[in-house]
Amino acid sequence: MRNIVVKELNQTYIEDLEIEIVERKGIGHPDSISDGIAQAVSNALCDMYQKELGEGNILHHNTDEVQITAGDSDPEWGGGIIRKPIDILLTGRGVSEYNGIKFPLERVAIKAAKDFLDETIINLDVELDTVVECKIGHGSGDLVDVFDRSPEAIPKSNDTSFGVGFAPLSEVEKLVLATEELLNSKEFKMDYPAVGQDIKVMGLREGDEISLTIACAMVSKYVNNREEYIEVRESLKRIVEELAPKYTKRNVTVDVNTGDNDDIEDKSGYYLTVTGTSAEMGDDGSVGRGNRANGLITPCRPMSMEATSGKNPVNHVGKIYNVLANKMANDTVNEIEGIKQMHIMLLTQIGSPINEPTASIQVILEDGLELSDVEDDIKKVINRNLDNIRDITKMVIEGKARTF
Amino acid sequence: MRNIVVKELNQTYIEDLEIEIVERKGIGHPDSISDGIAQAVSNALCDMYQKELGEGNILHHNTDEVQITAGDSDPEWGGGIIRKPIDILLTGRGVSEYNGIKFPLERVAIKAAKDFLDETIINLDVELDTVVECKIGHGSGDLVDVFDRSPEAIPKSNDTSFGVGFAPLSEVEKLVLATEELLNSKEFKMDYPAVGQDIKVMGLREGDEISLTIACAMVSKYVNNREEYIEVRESLKRIVEELAPKYTKRNVTVDVNTGDNDDIEDKSGYYLTVTGTSAEMGDDGSVGRGNRANGLITPCRPMSMEATSGKNPVNHVGKIYNVLANKMANDTVNEIEGIKQMHIMLLTQIGSPINEPTASIQVILEDGLELSDVEDDIKKVINRNLDNIRDITKMVIEGKARTF
Amino acid sequence: MRNIVVKELNQTYIEDLEIEIVERKGIGHPDSISDGIAQAVSNALCDMYQKELGEGNILHHNTDEVQITAGDSDPEWGGGIIRKPIDILLTGRGVSEYNGIKFPLERVAIKAAKDFLDETIINLDVELDTVVECKIGHGSGDLVDVFDRSPEAIPKSNDTSFGVGFAPLSEVEKLVLATEELLNSKEFKMDYPAVGQDIKVMGLREGDEISLTIACAMVSKYVNNREEYIEVRESLKRIVEELAPKYTKRNVTVDVNTGDNDDIEDKSGYYLTVTGTSAEMGDDGSVGRGNRANGLITPCRPMSMEATSGKNPVNHVGKIYNVLANKMANDTVNEIEGIKQMHIMLLTQIGSPINEPTASIQVILEDGLELSDVEDDIKKVINRNLDNIRDITKMVIEGKARTF
Amino acid sequence: MRNIVVKELNQTYIEDLEIEIVERKGIGHPDSISDGIAQAVSNALCDMYQKELGEGNILHHNTDEVQITAGDSDPEWGGGIIRKPIDILLTGRGVSEYNGIKFPLERVAIKAAKDFLDETIINLDVELDTVVECKIGHGSGDLVDVFDRSPEAIPKSNDTSFGVGFAPLSEVEKLVLATEELLNSKEFKMDYPAVGQDIKVMGLREGDEISLTIACAMVSKYVNNREEYIEVRESLKRIVEELAPKYTKRNVTVDVNTGDNDDIEDKSGYYLTVTGTSAEMGDDGSVGRGNRANGLITPCRPMSMEATSGKNPVNHVGKIYNVLANKMANDTVNEIEGIKQMHIMLLTQIGSPINEPTASIQVILEDGLELSDVEDDIKKVINRNLDNIRDITKMVIEGKARTF
Repeated sequence: MRNIVVKELNQTYIEDLEIEIVERKGIGHPDSISDGIAQAVSNALCDMYQKELGEGNILHHNTDEVQITAGDSDPEWGGGIIRKPIDILLTGRGVSEYNGIKFPLERVAIKAAKDFLDETIINLDVELDTVVECKIGHGSGDLVDVFDRSPEAIPKSNDTSFGVGFAPLSEVEKLVLATEELLNSKEFKMDYPAVGQDIKVMGLREGDEISLTIACAMVSKYVNNREEYIEVRESLKRIVEELAPKYTKRNVTVDVNTGDNDDIEDKSGYYLTVTGTSAEMGDDGSVGRGNRANGLITPCRPMSMEATSGKNPVNHVGKIYNVLANKMANDTVNEIEGIKQMHIMLLTQIGSPINEPTASIQVILEDGLELSDVEDDIKKVINRNLDNIRDITKMVIEGKARTF
Repeated sequence: MRNIVVKELNQTYIEDLEIEIVERKGIGHPDSISDGIAQAVSNALCDMYQKELGEGNILHHNTDEVQITAGDSDPEWGGGIIRKPIDILLTGRGVSEYNGIKFPLERVAIKAAKDFLDETIINLDVELDTVVECKIGHGSGDLVDVFDRSPEAIPKSNDTSFGVGFAPLSEVEKLVLATEELLNSKEFKMDYPAVGQDIKVMGLREGDEISLTIACAMVSKYVNNREEYIEVRESLKRIVEELAPKYTKRNVTVDVNTGDNDDIEDKSGYYLTVTGTSAEMGDDGSVGRGNRANGLITPCRPMSMEATSGKNPVNHVGKIYNVLANKMANDTVNEIEGIKQMHIMLLTQIGSPINEPTASIQVILEDGLELSDVEDDIKKVINRNLDNIRDITKMVIEGKARTF
Repeated sequence: MRNIVVKELNQTYIEDLEIEIVERKGIGHPDSISDGIAQAVSNALCDMYQKELGEGNILHHNTDEVQITAGDSDPEWGGGIIRKPIDILLTGRGVSEYNGIKFPLERVAIKAAKDFLDETIINLDVELDTVVECKIGHGSGDLVDVFDRSPEAIPKSNDTSFGVGFAPLSEVEKLVLATEELLNSKEFKMDYPAVGQDIKVMGLREGDEISLTIACAMVSKYVNNREEYIEVRESLKRIVEELAPKYTKRNVTVDVNTGDNDDIEDKSGYYLTVTGTSAEMGDDGSVGRGNRANGLITPCRPMSMEATSGKNPVNHVGKIYNVLANKMANDTVNEIEGIKQMHIMLLTQIGSPINEPTASIQVILEDGLELSDVEDDIKKVINRNLDNIRDITKMVIEGKARTF
Repeated sequence: MRNIVVKELNQTYIEDLEIEIVERKGIGHPDSISDGIAQAVSNALCDMYQKELGEGNILHHNTDEVQITAGDSDPEWGGGIIRKPIDILLTGRGVSEYNGIKFPLERVAIKAAKDFLDETIINLDVELDTVVECKIGHGSGDLVDVFDRSPEAIPKSNDTSFGVGFAPLSEVEKLVLATEELLNSKEFKMDYPAVGQDIKVMGLREGDEISLTIACAMVSKYVNNREEYIEVRESLKRIVEELAPKYTKRNVTVDVNTGDNDDIEDKSGYYLTVTGTSAEMGDDGSVGRGNRANGLITPCRPMSMEATSGKNPVNHVGKIYNVLANKMANDTVNEIEGIKQMHIMLLTQIGSPINEPTASIQVILEDGLELSDVEDDIKKVINRNLDNIRDITKMVIEGKARTF
């Protein structure tokens, strides 16, 4: 039985907090690469199962464990090489045999991981700069029972778990997200090939002062010397300073690569990489340690620890509810006037139909509004989303729902 | 420069929230095992460096990446075997050579991991049920510079990062923690050898109704049949029900292994394992995906995404600040009357002395108290803790500070 | 001091033996793939060192250990897929740092292995059908001392070891070699794309009856059904029958894929593979278990157990002497009339200059010849070859000397 | 149909050869360790299958692929440590599921490997000095068909292959074997704990001069300084010099660790190890690259390239025939007077009953004997052995037949 409870959120409105911290690990950060691979592998397995068994027939799997062990590299002004490849271990579980059909689990998983790397870290030579090993376990076919595969059937929750979401994003949240998305956009890379994908954006708001601290791995072959490096770095600073006013009227200061040491000419003073990700040399990564399902790390907001990326999108509520709660919150604030802030928590017990959670909704309303003014409308949005919960599976597979 | 800001927290007091969710992954949960190994390896490296180089001389390392890939097992009533061992991959970074001294990095790391497993998962035959592989990278000696090793020297922060903490624990938080600690205590295991270490406790409070959902891996050799299993399970339920009133006057219902199916006699209907952890068969694990530094997952509280376990305890603020913030909050509420709830956030920039963070303190006070009544006292506690920040390193190494 | 001893070989001339067995594992046999990778990696390291340090400056390495663990596949008439990639573990030793120069050992080794696979097993999709992992150890720079790198300098032997060689090849030996070389030639593959590279040829001569047993992995995408398969198989038989008279006047019978079962239509009755090598599914491989340095396995001839492929070509006499002994024997029988059969054994002690072995030469002469008629000429050939022993290094690196 | 052909061997009697080379890699040599593990794993799988399925019921497996990758160590006079463990990769194939029974293949294999190491390399701390990883593939149950398991049933040959054997051993062969066996005997280790298991004995006979070159890894904790080391080394020399006259009246010179440099006091001038095997630091190993089935490497004798260790002892003729041919040769020369030298080659085709090979027997007889005097007796011995061929399986499993 669904249980939808709507309450007022007794809490300082996010924009009125004295201090707000927001972080995003860009798509080339080792933790994000892990998330991305985990999700890409899950999507590929979904495709594999559906192609063989028919639309909607997805067998059990969870590929939400990827361990990236950093390689070794030698970036140089205007060049550089990878000495030792990045190790990428795929693990988790999937069904490799069902009704006599054997699935090429390993091959499909490895292909998905390599394709993801190839598209995402454009200066990585996947074949020589990485070793992708697959230890995905072969779950028995028994587990398949969980999934009744007729489209109307509602899967049972695989665990006692919960998901959280909120909307709308605060100014700092929007700005942090937009900054990383801009710097990692295809268009931007055309103009600034030196800017790698490993971009970490940390936003700190103290009162009305926002500071953005950006750590950005530069691609060594596109910066021939210290001067060029500094030029790119200063451009980044300027570009983000120009971006900021679109998202806030507050004062924004931008720092890029604060660890640099401009007093020395040597490459050692700079954040230089061959491939554009620190996974090439120093930094390991794994799934679920970075961005939450909405793309951000927000210690001032409710967060779930569940890794959203890589879990099966059919009955793993640890995944589905995080995606769904954010969608519900966004739908609600977009469709209903007067909601300043909204938190959603969805909970269920193992074995319950996934569309029958307890939904705890909390809202901060615009002045003059009463909860009773919006409560029914909110429940309508929530119910509609729960009625269509199986769409989440599709959205995830088709890449229309963010998971990290 | 330290910047300590104390404000009132404008938020519903945790005990007055309508819904509160708290989770703890017990020490035998695959994610917690990963955390525990990561921290054990870091501690062992600290010992190794200090033995060779002298008290306080800890070289750079971060071992906060451990990937557990589940094995395969066949539990049976009264017995069972592990068919395929659990794979444990240690990764991260350490200095293996310094001033001509070569350190046995791999051996020390593997020994630490195996010793931890041996002590923690008592029914695991570490030698045959696990394969521990070490891919910890050999960081260059250059990185050592960061650590000025005289005891008075204050290390510089290794990153732009933050930590969070809060106190006191809510009733549900205390109850969840106490439940796992009881069920995993040595004394309890003497009486109930059938109860494995992989115990997940999920606490949900709706108004004044608290429900605890406990998932507990049973050790097959100590349960000879369905009846014995059920008996143990019912004992657990009863014991936790008896424990609850120590922590709350609210009504508490306890459910254990809700996925069980008592209609069938077959072992398949029960949560049966050979070793007491689900890592033996189904569940992978990795560092930083489970409990936060205070031992809990608390979506209704501020949380940091940083993995606390395994990071170097000298200058990795992502570790130190999480441990410190919780300690500060506890010290404060213990020493100062009238603080109902306290949140602390510590932030710093890469390169700043670690004892000079921005500390954002938020408090909910007892009725009748003003912020000015306690502000100075609070700052004293905070300052004292910052003055003694290097004690955190020792506490962590000596196992006196929880990291997961 | 060189010690060259020439004696008559008191033994039945190879062609007069009642029974003679000769085997060749073709280039796509898992053991030969291992040999080929080992040698390719050594060659690539030689290139790497020379490019950085100058012509002739090759640092210490031995890469004569490669373990191939078979994958899993599903060949189908006219198609088929690889389900699980072939694992290829590179191991051995190399110098990764010398005089402050760091070498990209892992990357170069992996590239060499993949390039070799790509060129050799043409239906293998190296990127998706294999996982190449490199655990080549980083030997210390101390070992470099062994190699005085001026061209005139003669390296000291790295071990107490020996090499053997013989000439000329017998009829069966020539036929076995020629058969595999024909079937694996580029021209042949154009006409018969269905014929994989994993071809094992076993020659047995009993008196004047020669039987060739050929096991040949067929490439499933090029055979659409049982009939096409049988057609290819019969073509192979016919082609080899037509080849035989070029090498012998004896009666030759040819059998291809004797394990086939033509009574069933199902693919299970045939030697069908997706890639043309059994490494894709059933058969592991490692270095030094197949062909000797002359390309053959010849139990009726003297053989060395040393793996020739992958050892360093500068001072590893286990490699150099096997290549050299075969060259010496061939040179001798080509240049000097009247030698029916020649065996050479080269021995040395660790630390001796590699051009000062004990050379034990045994010959069977044509009727009417005395040893004294040829002894001096033979010694000249042997001495010339020893004088030019450093050419072997070049020949090996340039691929002009067979090692498997 | 059996085909037994007995001929005179037209060849110089082994003792009359001018030059004879014989080598044995002792049980602690990395290649021998690989052989030993491979065989121990096969034996353990045989036990496992028989325990579950009944005496004689051995399922298909081949575990003749083991890759040892050397670790890293720091031996010191009187002590020393292992820095990085030795990697041991088990590969090959076995049946893990049959008639609904699941076998703990990995666990049994790993246990067998570790037990072997524990017993064999006594100074190795298996748990900390090695990492044993198992990638043994799970062959499908189909392969089981090959083995008809009634004791009278004669398995069909798994391959077109052959085995070779000879007897009696020459003086040098006996001496080389006896030397290693003495130095690696339990009694000897009691008196000389400093003598490791990695002992390579190379015997060279030139006319009547025999030289034995022994390379012996010393165990560092039992030699406190250069003087003690030299004392042990000289003892070894003396002991082997005293052993020699039991096997030959020829003059024997013995050299031990010829690579040592007594001019320096530093450990670097000596063959010092922590564990007694060079696998700890420098030398990798794999199956089938060392001793043949009779325990020796004998380039002057017929040899097979087949790795005998680790293959299944039921129908893998590459294993069975090598063991059997040596047994046949020994039986014959022991039972029949007047045979100075005997070579046996056993050949068969895939699919033939394993007791119906072609057996090619060659003998050198004492002066005065004719082939017709012994031919029938020889055939009797051969036939008896073929009639009892299934005993080989038992002998191998029970450790009564040498495989390396």
